[in-house]
Amino acid sequence: MSLKLYLAGPEVFLPDARAILDAKADLTRAYGFEPICPGDLVIPPAPTKHQFGLNISEVDEGFMNRADGVIANLTPFRGIAADPGTVFELGYMCGAGKIVACYTNVADSHYQRSADFYGGAVHVGEDGRKRAPDGTMLEDFEMIENLMLHGGVERRGGPVAVHAADPKRLWTDFTAFEQCLKALAGRG
Amino acid sequence: MSLKLYLAGPEVFLPDARAILDAKADLTRAYGFEPICPGDLVIPPAPTKHQFGLNISEVDEGFMNRADGVIANLTPFRGIAADPGTVFELGYMCGAGKIVACYTNVADSHYQRSADFYGGAVHVGEDGRKRAPDGTMLEDFEMIENLMLHGGVERRGGPVAVHAADPKRLWTDFTAFEQCLKALAGRG
Repeated sequence: MSLKLYLAGPEVFLPDARAILDAKADLTRAYGFEPICPGDLVIPPAPTKHQFGLNISEVDEGFMNRADGVIANLTPFRGIAADPGTVFELGYMCGAGKIVACYTNVADSHYQRSADFYGGAVHVGEDGRKRAPDGTMLEDFEMIENLMLHGGVERRGGPVAVHAADPKRLWTDFTAFEQCLKALAGRG
Repeated sequence: MSLKLYLAGPEVFLPDARAILDAKADLTRAYGFEPICPGDLVIPPAPTKHQFGLNISEVDEGFMNRADGVIANLTPFRGIAADPGTVFELGYMCGAGKIVACYTNVADSHYQRSADFYGGAVHVGEDGRKRAPDGTMLEDFEMIENLMLHGGVERRGGPVAVHAADPKRLWTDFTAFEQCLKALAGRG
C-alpha cells in the first residue's frame, strides 16, 4: 500500500488553486505516493462563518490524521514567513510522529529575510547576538525558516529543499517540491 | 501534581526576554501550574551555528514533550501573522494531543490584518470569495489567526483570548495570557 502524503501549503489561497493542487497531486502519484490535498475537502455547511471555519479545521485535521506524512510548502506568503496554516500543519505532523518534509521556492534564508524586514539595519548587541533596531534578536542558523520548523524536519531525517524559483513562477515551479518527493521515495 | 504548561511565544526574541518570561512564569505558578519556558534552555555547544540551531530545536521539543499543555502567544510578530516558531509549537502540541490555549494582544482579526496587508484593497470575486488585488483569497471566519490555529484550539475546548493591548505594552500586558490561565485553571 502506498504512503499517503498530505500536501500542505498556501496554494489553497491562490486564484488557480485547483489547477496547482491537481498538478502537485499528479506529481505525488508519479513517485508512488497517494496525495491528500487540503483543497479536496467538502465542508459541511454551517449557520455562521465562524462555524464554517471550524468545520474546515476539523476536516483538514482529519486529512492529516489519515496521512502518513506531510510535504509543507514554506515559501513566504504575505510577508517574510511561511503561511501560518501550513506551519501549524507541519508542527502538527511532527507532534503526531509522522513523516515530514518541507521546501521553499525562495532561496533567501530566514536570517536574510528577517534582516530585510528591518531594511538590513542589523547590529551585533553587547551579548554578541544579532539585533534589529527594535532590540529584537535575529536567528542566524543558516535555515530556511525559524529553527523549530527547519530543525523539526531535519532532525527527523526529512528533506529540506530550497530552490530559487523565478518570482513569476513562485507557486508553479515544482523543482523543490519534486526534490522532497524524490528524497521520500528514496527512503523506500 | 500540578500540570506543566509550555509558554510559547516570540518573547524569546525580545531584548528583555528573561524578565518577561520570568513574569509569565510567576503568573503561571500563581494559578497552580508549573511553567516551562523556552528561555530556560541550556543548549549544548556545537561546531557550527546550524548545528546549534538544531540543538535548540531538540531541547525545545523535549520541553514540549515534558509539558501537559501549551499557552501560545499569537500576537503578530514581524508582520501580520504570529511568530512561525510559536505556530509550529501550537501545531505540535495539538498533534501530540496536549492541552492547548492561545491569545493575542492585537484585537484586529486575521481577516482585518490580511486586508490591511493589501492596504484594504479587497474585492469580492465572481465565486463570492473575498480576494486581494493579487487574486489570493482572504479567510474571513472571525478568527484571530488562520483557521487551523484558531480552530485547532477552539475545537479542543481551549481558550482563545483577545485583548487590545496598548502598543507600548504589546509584550508586557498579560491580560489575555492571564485569561488563558484562568480558563485552564477552571477546567480543574
